[in-house]
Amino acid sequence: MNHSIIHHLNWRYATKRYDQTRVIPDQTIDLIKEALRLTPTSYGLQPLKFLLIKNQEIRKQLLNYSYNQQSITDASHLIVIASYRDIQSDEIDQYMQNTAVTRDLPLEQLSGYSDFLKRIMNNQTTEQKTTWAQKQAYITLGVLVDICAQLKVDATPIEGFDVKGYDAILNLEEKGLTSTIVVPIGYRHQDDVTQHWKKVRKPAEELFEIY
Amino acid sequence: MNHSIIHHLNWRYATKRYDQTRVIPDQTIDLIKEALRLTPTSYGLQPLKFLLIKNQEIRKQLLNYSYNQQSITDASHLIVIASYRDIQSDEIDQYMQNTAVTRDLPLEQLSGYSDFLKRIMNNQTTEQKTTWAQKQAYITLGVLVDICAQLKVDATPIEGFDVKGYDAILNLEEKGLTSTIVVPIGYRHQDDVTQHWKKVRKPAEELFEIY
Repeated sequence: MNHSIIHHLNWRYATKRYDQTRVIPDQTIDLIKEALRLTPTSYGLQPLKFLLIKNQEIRKQLLNYSYNQQSITDASHLIVIASYRDIQSDEIDQYMQNTAVTRDLPLEQLSGYSDFLKRIMNNQTTEQKTTWAQKQAYITLGVLVDICAQLKVDATPIEGFDVKGYDAILNLEEKGLTSTIVVPIGYRHQDDVTQHWKKVRKPAEELFEIY
Repeated sequence: MNHSIIHHLNWRYATKRYDQTRVIPDQTIDLIKEALRLTPTSYGLQPLKFLLIKNQEIRKQLLNYSYNQQSITDASHLIVIASYRDIQSDEIDQYMQNTAVTRDLPLEQLSGYSDFLKRIMNNQTTEQKTTWAQKQAYITLGVLVDICAQLKVDATPIEGFDVKGYDAILNLEEKGLTSTIVVPIGYRHQDDVTQHWKKVRKPAEELFEIY
């Protein structure tokens, strides 16, 4: 299919080896950050924090908890997408404040919606809330892989890492967060042979049902 | 920020009211399908099925399990993203078959990776596997909202629906699937006032930590 959307998604791949000499320019990083900020989440609550790590000392520590995946240190930047463990009413209050200011509304007008959201969250266990927040992290991952491809930036989404190790090094637990997905971003090394491997995907007949 | 990526993400919003007279052209639907097919998932396993529903009889039934959100019937198409409840070894075997054919490799060469994946999956409870597959659905949701915006197609991601009702109407349980996210897609109605509401997002200082 001859469309830039498809070209971009075919261009990208889970990069195994990065070119350590190339750094993503600041203005490209700013675009990636703004895209992550604009990504929609459930109720608009954004129960997430994005850690953008260039610092090599921290990345060397994280590498010990990453099954030795070298992209953790070799890529230009490392993004850790962290999610809230247990969203509380004060977070919903802050969201309503932000909504009132952004849309120039009296806060009282949002009290019904605020109560509704608090009821939904209070009816869930901590584990359910953590899982809900983690799912929102995966939406941002989808946007991230797509916009990186559009910007010709390589990305390697990683689910396989030691969450406890990451949370300890990054002081996430004390902030009520947990590391959910790790994404090195940068530029593929010209000798990464996996860039030439054909993409394996289910055929459309298997993946779609049309009604 | 003056870049098409940012324009697209600012253009989109969770459309409340659709123009019932406008239908997404087939070639645009084909692009959306291909983008969903190319979306990366954990280990490349794609534990998902996408139901693309134009049929109004089915959508009227689903509306009863959707807290009366009219976009279920009024949008041009309805996408139900369903995920596997309990991925089994035969799915991994199929994936290896597909990999061998796609990359022209002898199947034996993949046996180590195949065993590795089976071990990972067999070490999880059914509930853990369901959650894992659902997270993959959310990656495709992220790509979907972004590529719809690029194609100037509106989309309304919906988490709030009666999963059991959907699974029953769409015969998903007997196929080992569960409905995870519902996304009406189409074109916003010119009278949908919510299109003019300012987007509420956390400020960058709050959402990002830079190291």
